[in-house]
Amino acid sequence: MPGSSIGKLFSVTTYGESHGPAIGCIIDGCPPMLQLTEQDIQVELDRRRPAQSKYVSQRREPDRVQILSGVFAGKTTGTPIGLQILNQDQRERDYADLESTYRPGHGDYTYQQKYGIRDHRGGGRASARETALRVAAGAIAKKFLREQLDINFAAQVVQVGNVVADLASMQEHVAEVRSDGDSIGAKLQLIISNVVAGLGEPVFDRLHADLAHALFSINAVKGVEFGAGFACVTARGSEFNDPITMDGFTSNNAGGTLAGISTGQDIVANIAFKPTSSIPTPTESINSNGDPVKVATKGRHDPCVGLRAPAIVEAMAAIVICDHVLRHRGQNGNFK
Amino acid sequence: MPGSSIGKLFSVTTYGESHGPAIGCIIDGCPPMLQLTEQDIQVELDRRRPAQSKYVSQRREPDRVQILSGVFAGKTTGTPIGLQILNQDQRERDYADLESTYRPGHGDYTYQQKYGIRDHRGGGRASARETALRVAAGAIAKKFLREQLDINFAAQVVQVGNVVADLASMQEHVAEVRSDGDSIGAKLQLIISNVVAGLGEPVFDRLHADLAHALFSINAVKGVEFGAGFACVTARGSEFNDPITMDGFTSNNAGGTLAGISTGQDIVANIAFKPTSSIPTPTESINSNGDPVKVATKGRHDPCVGLRAPAIVEAMAAIVICDHVLRHRGQNGNFK
Amino acid sequence: MPGSSIGKLFSVTTYGESHGPAIGCIIDGCPPMLQLTEQDIQVELDRRRPAQSKYVSQRREPDRVQILSGVFAGKTTGTPIGLQILNQDQRERDYADLESTYRPGHGDYTYQQKYGIRDHRGGGRASARETALRVAAGAIAKKFLREQLDINFAAQVVQVGNVVADLASMQEHVAEVRSDGDSIGAKLQLIISNVVAGLGEPVFDRLHADLAHALFSINAVKGVEFGAGFACVTARGSEFNDPITMDGFTSNNAGGTLAGISTGQDIVANIAFKPTSSIPTPTESINSNGDPVKVATKGRHDPCVGLRAPAIVEAMAAIVICDHVLRHRGQNGNFK
Amino acid sequence: MPGSSIGKLFSVTTYGESHGPAIGCIIDGCPPMLQLTEQDIQVELDRRRPAQSKYVSQRREPDRVQILSGVFAGKTTGTPIGLQILNQDQRERDYADLESTYRPGHGDYTYQQKYGIRDHRGGGRASARETALRVAAGAIAKKFLREQLDINFAAQVVQVGNVVADLASMQEHVAEVRSDGDSIGAKLQLIISNVVAGLGEPVFDRLHADLAHALFSINAVKGVEFGAGFACVTARGSEFNDPITMDGFTSNNAGGTLAGISTGQDIVANIAFKPTSSIPTPTESINSNGDPVKVATKGRHDPCVGLRAPAIVEAMAAIVICDHVLRHRGQNGNFK
Repeated sequence: MPGSSIGKLFSVTTYGESHGPAIGCIIDGCPPMLQLTEQDIQVELDRRRPAQSKYVSQRREPDRVQILSGVFAGKTTGTPIGLQILNQDQRERDYADLESTYRPGHGDYTYQQKYGIRDHRGGGRASARETALRVAAGAIAKKFLREQLDINFAAQVVQVGNVVADLASMQEHVAEVRSDGDSIGAKLQLIISNVVAGLGEPVFDRLHADLAHALFSINAVKGVEFGAGFACVTARGSEFNDPITMDGFTSNNAGGTLAGISTGQDIVANIAFKPTSSIPTPTESINSNGDPVKVATKGRHDPCVGLRAPAIVEAMAAIVICDHVLRHRGQNGNFK
Repeated sequence: MPGSSIGKLFSVTTYGESHGPAIGCIIDGCPPMLQLTEQDIQVELDRRRPAQSKYVSQRREPDRVQILSGVFAGKTTGTPIGLQILNQDQRERDYADLESTYRPGHGDYTYQQKYGIRDHRGGGRASARETALRVAAGAIAKKFLREQLDINFAAQVVQVGNVVADLASMQEHVAEVRSDGDSIGAKLQLIISNVVAGLGEPVFDRLHADLAHALFSINAVKGVEFGAGFACVTARGSEFNDPITMDGFTSNNAGGTLAGISTGQDIVANIAFKPTSSIPTPTESINSNGDPVKVATKGRHDPCVGLRAPAIVEAMAAIVICDHVLRHRGQNGNFK
Repeated sequence: MPGSSIGKLFSVTTYGESHGPAIGCIIDGCPPMLQLTEQDIQVELDRRRPAQSKYVSQRREPDRVQILSGVFAGKTTGTPIGLQILNQDQRERDYADLESTYRPGHGDYTYQQKYGIRDHRGGGRASARETALRVAAGAIAKKFLREQLDINFAAQVVQVGNVVADLASMQEHVAEVRSDGDSIGAKLQLIISNVVAGLGEPVFDRLHADLAHALFSINAVKGVEFGAGFACVTARGSEFNDPITMDGFTSNNAGGTLAGISTGQDIVANIAFKPTSSIPTPTESINSNGDPVKVATKGRHDPCVGLRAPAIVEAMAAIVICDHVLRHRGQNGNFK
Repeated sequence: MPGSSIGKLFSVTTYGESHGPAIGCIIDGCPPMLQLTEQDIQVELDRRRPAQSKYVSQRREPDRVQILSGVFAGKTTGTPIGLQILNQDQRERDYADLESTYRPGHGDYTYQQKYGIRDHRGGGRASARETALRVAAGAIAKKFLREQLDINFAAQVVQVGNVVADLASMQEHVAEVRSDGDSIGAKLQLIISNVVAGLGEPVFDRLHADLAHALFSINAVKGVEFGAGFACVTARGSEFNDPITMDGFTSNNAGGTLAGISTGQDIVANIAFKPTSSIPTPTESINSNGDPVKVATKGRHDPCVGLRAPAIVEAMAAIVICDHVLRHRGQNGNFK
């Protein structure tokens, strides 16, 4: 399968550009008999959408999800679930001048290199708008995992720039950065709790390797670490190894997996988001003729993409965990 | 495909435990007409094997690779390449007492949880010995990429514990740690140079996401970052965005991809390796009855797994890049 | 990937039930720069739709396809192509009494067994309506193959019941069968002409094996044979082997492949379609309580599903050939 | 994955040419805790090997299988099972003159067209010898299915040439054909009994579509039909539909699936095998220079490949059913 699909048993395939008539996805392999309504999905989408506060983009994207198939009488039927979100606020004028310009930090240049053609409007396929579908698909995975196995997902912003503090302080910092016509990076922490032991497949599809793949597939992610992460470089084995006792592990430097298989501890990951590439401050670039240009983004953009990312991070993690739950019980039978 | 395969067009599937009669792999999808000898593969294997210096494990593993199929008259034929390495230095006695013990930091506990059974000898399937096959398969990918597109792979240890210096100083630190009966983490840097622009598939199989998956599938990896990596958290967009000029990009904070597609710049990644889990210092654990035990490893183990990792890191990166080169030309035709 | 996807590089994933708001599909991996309009797809859809003559079902299904993504400025962009067809003629009343009845010859019973739930309206996911999406996706594959490699697809009905004659005679026979309140089987012949030599992958994904998979995935198909097909059972090798001369092969008993790889000759296949399962004549069955019932279909159904099948057969064949063209050039480089 | 792999959860990947040092395969995804010895596999291999009677090839292929991994203390561990069979009877001289000749009915010409290179010795990768691995892998699938679900596989030759009679008469006919320096086709019937209902995935991976793929991947297969098969062309719906009663289905024209999902009835398939391509009677062909040559096979070949095929047919069917059993319980949970 080409790159727009993820998951082997619980699989998600997405389509759609920022400025086409709609974006959508197909979730194939979802277990049957899961109670599911559009509202179950909408609550997750609403967590991600912009215009929730003054700190995030002022675009209004109602992002109303529609279930087109795979649900009957309020329950999943085991057949593919088609989801769709109409693009309502297209404002093509914002992007007309970018037809021949390669915005720094964006996929404009690379899409052109790869395909020889690109939909330049709003970033086209590379737009962060596509992540709405991940959140929608992830909402289904989360519901299944919560109801069947009580597995829970929680991601939060833990750092913005140099501010490691409460959310209010971090948002304040974002406001400062915005007023400077600039953007700022962020760090998120993901905690997956109550994970069943035994998920993950040696040797390539280790659980954390598949999670890393899913997390790095989110726009703007530049680093992922599990448990102690990069701090392990300076650690000694005698302090890093997590002791096992009759009451369980006494620390979690490993971050919830050993040899790529879940231990039953929380899975803990940190994810680094780069600063938003679209900024009002002019940056040097070239156009499709190779001539130098200055690019200054006039559109409505979040100065800190990380602020909207928790719902996306949770969704991608849930898709991976759900896939591995199904894969595990395929090979090994049900969980006790 | 279950977890022992990686790659969609250039695919590698491995089998084998540390203490069975042999380990091996199948490389399917390799382009035909590539000149290939066992020696081409052996040179890479020799880079990875232990007993090269006093700083790494003293086990002797000759690791002689045999090509069993897919090569005729010195050239690949396009059919599956079967590779095999016999296990010669099995020394089963070293592991007899681990039959019922879960070593901290190892997969003993999780394999038992997942499958209800495990080959405890030498870590079984979770043994680092399996990485020899990755190096072998990667050697073929590297050769193809070097000869066809002049793409090159270079990984090196850049930090051991708190030592960020020349290799000699880092090795000296490892020797100290060993004499303490302990182990130590390490950081590696991978540079892939002369990459063609356009590799990677939106939206899930971004090039760096697939690289991260492959790198996290290596034993002991706890963190991966591209370009500026976690430093992006404190960066502003105006300094982070890589300007594009008529002479190319003037910086490489992105690490070689934009929107998941290669820019043509070097791909740069840092990888964190945890300290070796097997140490002579006793650590608290339990056995399969749940009783507390102290585990102290008597076997011959590297105190710093990172030292042997460069060949593995390069191999996994080469497998991913080769897969994406074939995928790209499948969809888009050949490179100019 | 679960069962609603086909193709490794040129992949098609479908969703949708007969009576939901819409059906749709995602084509991922389509080469960029292919000129494509909705009308290019619509012409193929129009070949398949019912109500074209008195011999096929009188339901009106306008089947207007919409392109939702992946096409920009009249050309494919290499990103996923989202297609959608709204369900307009739902007439739920026709199916209300089938909620608890298992129609003979249909998937009602097996879907219930598999999933424990099913959308009974109009056959739900098992409805032949789903094949519209195959025709739509296949239209894109056909266009690419025709324009790039001049490969052509032609399927036709060659037998209905015992009538092996012109189309008019076969249609006349269908009318007779309909007036008897019954249905009838049909045989189709598929000819793929101007195929490039070298398509197909040993040993499992032989070209004709993948074609057979795709053809058997069409509703009502009960048999597939290539070249001489079942007649090979009574043939001797001396007459069956296709001689090779300086001017090419002098016969085509093999049907266009040798050892699963295309020879460059026409690929020729026969496909057997069973008689339509839905008939006005009452048939014995049971309901979901296990009680015996008589099932007589009142809806509008084709008495010979084979008559509408040529567009579907061609589409499935085109999807497979397109996938193998891309796979071939991925591994082996471009065609000369 | 390229073409040398089959199965999504229970997957088999093979390597090896007729005249290399060994052939082998990797079975990944096998459930753990299955008791398994080399002898369990060997009994199936012995059913397939030549030199069992005067009617089949006189080559001796001991075909001793070795388990290299994935089995510990007599049980599968859930990790990849590596199998290997050494090539002992290579007799390279038999094939020396075929280096530049394209044998009619063989893959010589097509492999050359596809890859630009081929291992000509004994058919290389296209040799029927590769099917030994399918039998070996299938033996594991059969054992699992028999022990867990009591599903059984039985294939037999039901026709050779025009002889539809007992095995002795069919073998007699083969002997006649051999004395004529010729070969003959055969028809096999496969019956899978005690199948659980609910296997198969709509819409592309219908159970019989996946079975057809697997069966057509066997050398020399030219036709596959399920249930009534091609006879459905002349049938009316009123007689073809299998009535459902409180005691189950009263006929099995469908062949064990409805809408691609198993009904619980026997799965019944007929498979047409072409006459052996290698015959002593000279046939017209060309060499790699395009010059005309006469090809007469001197080697030891079965005049009727169908006679050795039952073990292969059963094996391929078992691999598919096992894969679908695991896929089903992955999505839907365990069987009752």
